[in-house]
This record gives sequence, C-alpha cells and structure tokens, in this order.
Amino acid sequence: MTTPKPTTHQAPTNLRDAQSLLTTHWRPQHILTANNTHSFKIATISNSFIWHAHPNTDEVFYVISGGPLMMDIATDLTSKHEDQGFETVRINVGDLFNVPLGYRHRPWVEQETGILMVEKVGTVNTGDEEGSPEGKERTVIVRKGDGEVA
Amino acid sequence: MTTPKPTTHQAPTNLRDAQSLLTTHWRPQHILTANNTHSFKIATISNSFIWHAHPNTDEVFYVISGGPLMMDIATDLTSKHEDQGFETVRINVGDLFNVPLGYRHRPWVEQETGILMVEKVGTVNTGDEEGSPEGKERTVIVRKGDGEVA
Repeated sequence: MTTPKPTTHQAPTNLRDAQSLLTTHWRPQHILTANNTHSFKIATISNSFIWHAHPNTDEVFYVISGGPLMMDIATDLTSKHEDQGFETVRINVGDLFNVPLGYRHRPWVEQETGILMVEKVGTVNTGDEEGSPEGKERTVIVRKGDGEVA
Repeated sequence: MTTPKPTTHQAPTNLRDAQSLLTTHWRPQHILTANNTHSFKIATISNSFIWHAHPNTDEVFYVISGGPLMMDIATDLTSKHEDQGFETVRINVGDLFNVPLGYRHRPWVEQETGILMVEKVGTVNTGDEEGSPEGKERTVIVRKGDGEVA
C-alpha cells in the first residue's frame, strides 16, 4: 500500500455553519465549483432584491434556513417587470427551485433567509441590471410599501 | 397589464418529500436540469456502493437526511482502489462535498441516507464500472466484513 497523500478534494462545507458566518445580506459567497462551469454559492438575504434576469444561465435556488423565499417571476420571457405579468412562487426551507435562463425575477423574504445558489461561473447577482444604478450598488432595496430603506 | 400565462418554470421540489417517495436504494431520480448540462438528482442509499470514478464529471453531494454519508476517496488520480491509498470523508446532514472528476470513490452509510447529487447530464451512477459485472447490476454491495449481502 502506498502512503496516503493529501488529495485535491476540498473538505465538506456545512451550509448552515457557512451561512452563519456571513455578515452582509445579498453578498453571495462562493463555496465550490463543479466542472469549471458551475458555481455553488451561499447568501443570507432580507427584504427584497431588484428585478433582473440572467441572460446566460439558469439559477437554481435551495433554501437552507428561514424562509420562505418568495420569488416573483415573469410569466414569459418578454415580461420585463411586474406591470407585464408575473407570479410569485413560494420556496420553503428544503425546497429546490430553478429560475430559467432569461426570466426576469425578484427574490424577497419576510425574515432573514439562507440560500444556496447554483449557476454558471461568473454570474453577477444583479444579472442584466449590473450596469443600472440599482444594480451597481448590488444592495438591498425594499419593496413598495415597506416604508423603510435597508 | 397582460393576463398572466403559465410560465415554463417547474414548481419547487421539497427534497425530503421527494426522497420519501423513493422505494429503491441507489436509484437516483432526476429532479431538474440546469443549463442543459447539469442534472440534480436525489437518491436514498444504504450499505455500500462499488468503487468507481466519473471520467467526465465532478459529482457534488449534499446530504438531505440520515447520514453521515461516508465517502472513501482515492488519494490521487492514479489510485484505483483501497489497496492504493484512499481516505474516508465524513459528510453530515447539511454538508456539501465535491468528488472531483476522475477520482475513484465509494460511498457508504451505516443507516439509510438521503442525498442530492449534481453532475453532468447523462452521468451513470456506476461511472467507469458501468460495463463491469458489479456496475451492470447498479445495485448495493456490502463492504468486507459486513457479513450479509443486501
């Protein structure tokens, strides 16, 4: 038997433990890369994000804690925002959900929620809004009527 | 406002609920595909699987229930089985772990365990052992010393 050498694999990551170390909402932290193409990231979120789409990737969500994650999602690829038709999907702790490539969406929560995301490497969380004033900040905005700015 | 139409997205899948419907160990069930390249699958497992490798894909594991998932994994790409150097990684419920492409590995558990796997579409769970007598059966084998055949 040869002497075992350290492998190139990475130790397991406990998603709840890793999430508990995050100090800023809506700042995804990279956990691992699969096949050099897909990134697994965790984040904690609160309140609401901006409407955006990812023109080059599906975005798979898994809810780790808190929840539910509410996902406003356009009813078809041509809908740009809530005035053009959308529905709201409820994603509970332990649920897996895919936002298909190109669909505009807006995640929001009523309590702090931990999420895992799987998407193509290099994806920016603000998607096609990266260059917009809202997207540039990559920060939390509140939904209409919330009455406070996060 | 246009009338909302059904979207092409799939309803969320609760991993524990989906897992509870599985009746056969080591038979992965496809849940969703991301970007036409990556498949999310769930399975329930018991006892031990065979040594195998996936020459074309990383294989990401997440433990849904039961656990721990124990992963014997070769210490380098040239190790073919336990006589050539391996280590055992303990993967608890809520942990995420990647078996890198090409590394021979053998998952085993001491109690029934539910797992999520993310890997390239078309991956066979027996990997490079698909054509072997053990791999063809794609069934459970017990570890040396277990004293019974599953």
